[in-house]
Amino acid sequence: MIKANFKKKILPIAVLSTVAFGSLAGTFDAEAKNKAKHNRTEIKNVIFLIGDGMGVSYTSAYRYLKDNHETTEAEKTEFDKYLVGSQMTYPEDPEQNVTDSASAATAMSAGIKTYNNAIAVDNDGSEVKTVLEAAKENGKATGLVATSEITHATPASFGAHDESRKNMNAIADDYYDELVKGEHKIDVMLGGGVSNFVRNDRNLAEEFQKDGYSYVTNKQDLLKNKNEKVLGLFAPGGMDKMIDRNEETPSLEDMTKTAIERLNKDKDGFFLMVEGSQVDWAGHDNDIVAAMSEMEDFEKAYKAAIEFAKKDKHTLVVATADHSTGGYSIGADGIYNWFGAPIKAAKRTPDFMAAEIANGADAEDTLKKYIDFKSVGLPELTAEELQSVKDVAPSKKARDIDNAIEQIFDKRSHTGWTTGGHTGEDVPVYAFGPGKERFYGQIDNIDNAKNIFDILANSKGK
Amino acid sequence: MIKANFKKKILPIAVLSTVAFGSLAGTFDAEAKNKAKHNRTEIKNVIFLIGDGMGVSYTSAYRYLKDNHETTEAEKTEFDKYLVGSQMTYPEDPEQNVTDSASAATAMSAGIKTYNNAIAVDNDGSEVKTVLEAAKENGKATGLVATSEITHATPASFGAHDESRKNMNAIADDYYDELVKGEHKIDVMLGGGVSNFVRNDRNLAEEFQKDGYSYVTNKQDLLKNKNEKVLGLFAPGGMDKMIDRNEETPSLEDMTKTAIERLNKDKDGFFLMVEGSQVDWAGHDNDIVAAMSEMEDFEKAYKAAIEFAKKDKHTLVVATADHSTGGYSIGADGIYNWFGAPIKAAKRTPDFMAAEIANGADAEDTLKKYIDFKSVGLPELTAEELQSVKDVAPSKKARDIDNAIEQIFDKRSHTGWTTGGHTGEDVPVYAFGPGKERFYGQIDNIDNAKNIFDILANSKGK
Repeated sequence: MIKANFKKKILPIAVLSTVAFGSLAGTFDAEAKNKAKHNRTEIKNVIFLIGDGMGVSYTSAYRYLKDNHETTEAEKTEFDKYLVGSQMTYPEDPEQNVTDSASAATAMSAGIKTYNNAIAVDNDGSEVKTVLEAAKENGKATGLVATSEITHATPASFGAHDESRKNMNAIADDYYDELVKGEHKIDVMLGGGVSNFVRNDRNLAEEFQKDGYSYVTNKQDLLKNKNEKVLGLFAPGGMDKMIDRNEETPSLEDMTKTAIERLNKDKDGFFLMVEGSQVDWAGHDNDIVAAMSEMEDFEKAYKAAIEFAKKDKHTLVVATADHSTGGYSIGADGIYNWFGAPIKAAKRTPDFMAAEIANGADAEDTLKKYIDFKSVGLPELTAEELQSVKDVAPSKKARDIDNAIEQIFDKRSHTGWTTGGHTGEDVPVYAFGPGKERFYGQIDNIDNAKNIFDILANSKGK
Repeated sequence: MIKANFKKKILPIAVLSTVAFGSLAGTFDAEAKNKAKHNRTEIKNVIFLIGDGMGVSYTSAYRYLKDNHETTEAEKTEFDKYLVGSQMTYPEDPEQNVTDSASAATAMSAGIKTYNNAIAVDNDGSEVKTVLEAAKENGKATGLVATSEITHATPASFGAHDESRKNMNAIADDYYDELVKGEHKIDVMLGGGVSNFVRNDRNLAEEFQKDGYSYVTNKQDLLKNKNEKVLGLFAPGGMDKMIDRNEETPSLEDMTKTAIERLNKDKDGFFLMVEGSQVDWAGHDNDIVAAMSEMEDFEKAYKAAIEFAKKDKHTLVVATADHSTGGYSIGADGIYNWFGAPIKAAKRTPDFMAAEIANGADAEDTLKKYIDFKSVGLPELTAEELQSVKDVAPSKKARDIDNAIEQIFDKRSHTGWTTGGHTGEDVPVYAFGPGKERFYGQIDNIDNAKNIFDILANSKGK
C-alpha cells in the first residue's frame, strides 16, 4: 500500500477537464459523440447514483424477485429501462487487482485509478479534485446521500481526501474544513455516522449549525426542514437496512427526494451523489435477504432521480456500481432455478433476527415471528431449518446464528456465494437525460468522472 | 417438461416479422430507432456469434488474462470495442427459471420463449421458424459453425426442430431432410459430431455428397476445399478444446473464415451462426484453464467476423452469450485478486492431463510436462500440489484427477465457482455494422431473432 508523499494539494480543474472524453471507446460513432457534445449546454444538474456492490447478478436477481408470475414476460426493473453499457472496475493497486469501494469511488469521482483504501488521493498520495468540488467551484449546489456513514468510502471519495478510508473522523473534518471559494463544499449531507461528527474532540454538527446548516437526526425532522444546507445523520454508524428500519429512519428515496428539492433551489444547478451503500454490506455477509432489501431501497431512490430528471429536462442521471460483492450467483449446486419468494417471506434481515436471538430471544419464536413462508405460498419453516438455528443459538454468537439463518434462504432460493469479498467482473451502467450518450458501451470507471468534469466545464455561469 | 402436441409445422414468416422491433425497451430514443430502420436496406449479411456460457465474469476475466502488465491500463478485448448492452436469458419453462442452451438458442433463433430442452419448438411442441430458415427463404446462403457437435443444442436450434436436444441423430436428419424451397437449408456446416452423421442406420455424409456437398474431416482438407456447400466434421463428438487440439483440427477462427469465404459467394448475402460452444462446457466442469482457452478461440473467430464486416460494410455482426455457467467469480475466499498467469502456464486442459494419468501416465511427470509455472514467473508446482493429484491418481478416475488439477489453478488464480450448472444473470451483447442500434440497451434474448427477422424481411431480392 502506498502511503508516502501524502500531499494536501488540489489539482486545478483545467488539468483534469482537458483529458475528459478522449479516452472513450470506439463503440459509438462520431455522430453520437458530436450530439453528446452539442447537448452539453443543456445539462444543468448531474445526479450520480452508485449501488455499492451491485453487480449484474444483483440487478438480474432483483428482476427475478420482482417478477409478476401472472405474466409470461419478466417485467423490467427501473434500471433495465436505461441500461447503456457496462464499466471496468479494476484499481491501480500495487498488491490487489480487484477494487475496493474507495479506489472505485475515487475513479468515479476524480477520474484517476488509485490504490485500494484511497479517498480521492492518487498513488503518490496527492489529493485529486473531485467532480463534487468542480461543481461547487462552478457555483452549483452539492449533495451526498448514503445509507452507510456519510463519511464511508464511497461518499468520502467525492467530498474529502484521505490516505485511508478508515479515517472517517478526519473525513468528517474535511467536509467542514476544506472550503471551496471560502464556502463549505457540500450543501446536503444525509446518511449515517453521528459518531464521526459528534465526538469528544470535536462537534461538527454544532460547527455546521453555526455556519447556517440545519442538523436533523430523524425522518420527521428531515421532511419538515427546508434549509438548503443540511446535515442529516440517522444512525451512530451505518443506517439500518430497509426492511429493518423503524419509523424515525428515512429511506434512501426519502433522502434523495429531499436532497433534490433543496439542491434544486440553486439557480446554477447541482451535483448530487446518492449511494445505495449496503447492497455491498449484504454481499460481504452473503445475505441474499438483505441484498434484495437494499436493491429495492436503491431502485426507489433511482426512480425518484429519474422522475425529477424527466420533468426537469436539464438533468443527467447516471447509475452504476463500483464492483460486485460475494461472488453471488443466481442458481447454485447444479440447480436451474432461483426463487424470490422465500426472500419475500422475510420481514427482517437475518442479522436483525440473529441479534435478537443472541440477546436471549427464543430461536424458534424469533424465526416464526419474522419469517412467514406461508404468506408467499411456501411450506412453513421445517423442523430441520429450525434445528439448524437452535443448534447455534446457545452460543449467543450472532455471526454463527446469522449464518445459519442465511443458509435457510440460500437453500430455498438456490443462491450461491464464492467469497466474503469483492469480485472483478464488469458492472452495469445506466444513464438518462442529456449527455447520456457519453456513457454508452464499454467504459472504464474513470470515464464517469471525465465525462462529468467535461459537462461541468461547459455548464458554468448559468 | 412439455412434450405433447409436437407438430411438424413451419410458421409463416409474416407472423413473426410483424412482431419484430416493437418490444424493445425505451433506452434509446426514436431517432436512433428510426435511423436503424432506415439503415436496414444496407444489411446484406448477418453473422450471429454465441459464446455459450460466456457471462460477464468470463468476458471480464478474459480481459484480466490478456492484460499487458507493462502498461497501467487494462487493454480492451475485441469484445469490449463493440459492447452495446446486455440481454435477459430466462426461459419459459414450467419447471425451471434458469435457461439451458436449447431454450436460449431457440429464443435467439426463433424469437420465442420456450422450455429447456426445446430445439426450435414452442411450449406446445410446434415447430417455429428460425432466422436461418428465413434467410434461406430469402435466397441467402446459410451456415452453422460450432466446436461442439454441429447438432448440439445451440446450432441445432437454428437449423432443426426437435422436442429434445438429446435427439442429435434426428437433428442431423433434419439438416438433410428439411428442405426450404426444395433445397437443403444449411450450406456450410462445420464442427464436431461425425457419429451423428455417419451411423449404422444412415450415412448423411454420403447423402450430402450425392447432393453436391463436399465432406471434409480435417483442417488441411477444409482449407483446400472451396465448395460453397460443405459438411466438415472434425471429431466423433465435440471437438477438442483449443489448447488440446492437434494440427489436423481447425480452430473456430479457421472454420469461421472459411465459412464466410464460401457464403460470401452468394450475391444475395448470407446468414451465419458461429458458436464458441465450450466456454460453457468448461464452466460446467468448473475448469478455468479450459474456459480461458475457449474464450480465446471464440475471440479470434469474433475478430475474423468483425474484420470481414469492416471491409464489407453491409454485414451486421452480433455477438452474445446464451447464459452464464458455473457461478464463476473473479476472486474467491475473501481475496481481492484474480491472476491470469497460472492459467497461461497450462499447455493442456486439466481434462487432457487427467485422461493421460487415468490411462496410466505418471502423475508428476504429466503435470510437469503440461504445466510450466516458471515460464510465467511463478513458483513451480509445490510438493503439496503434486501430492493432491498423486493422492487420486491410483483410482484411475479421470473426473477426480481432473478436479484435483483444476483446484491447483483455482487456488493460484483465486477462481470461485458455485455450481456445475447455469446461472441466471444477464449476459453482454456486442454489435457492429449496419443495424447495430437495434441491439442497444437492455434487450431480451428473443429480441435478437425479432431484429434479424425484421432485417431479413427488408433484405429480399437483392
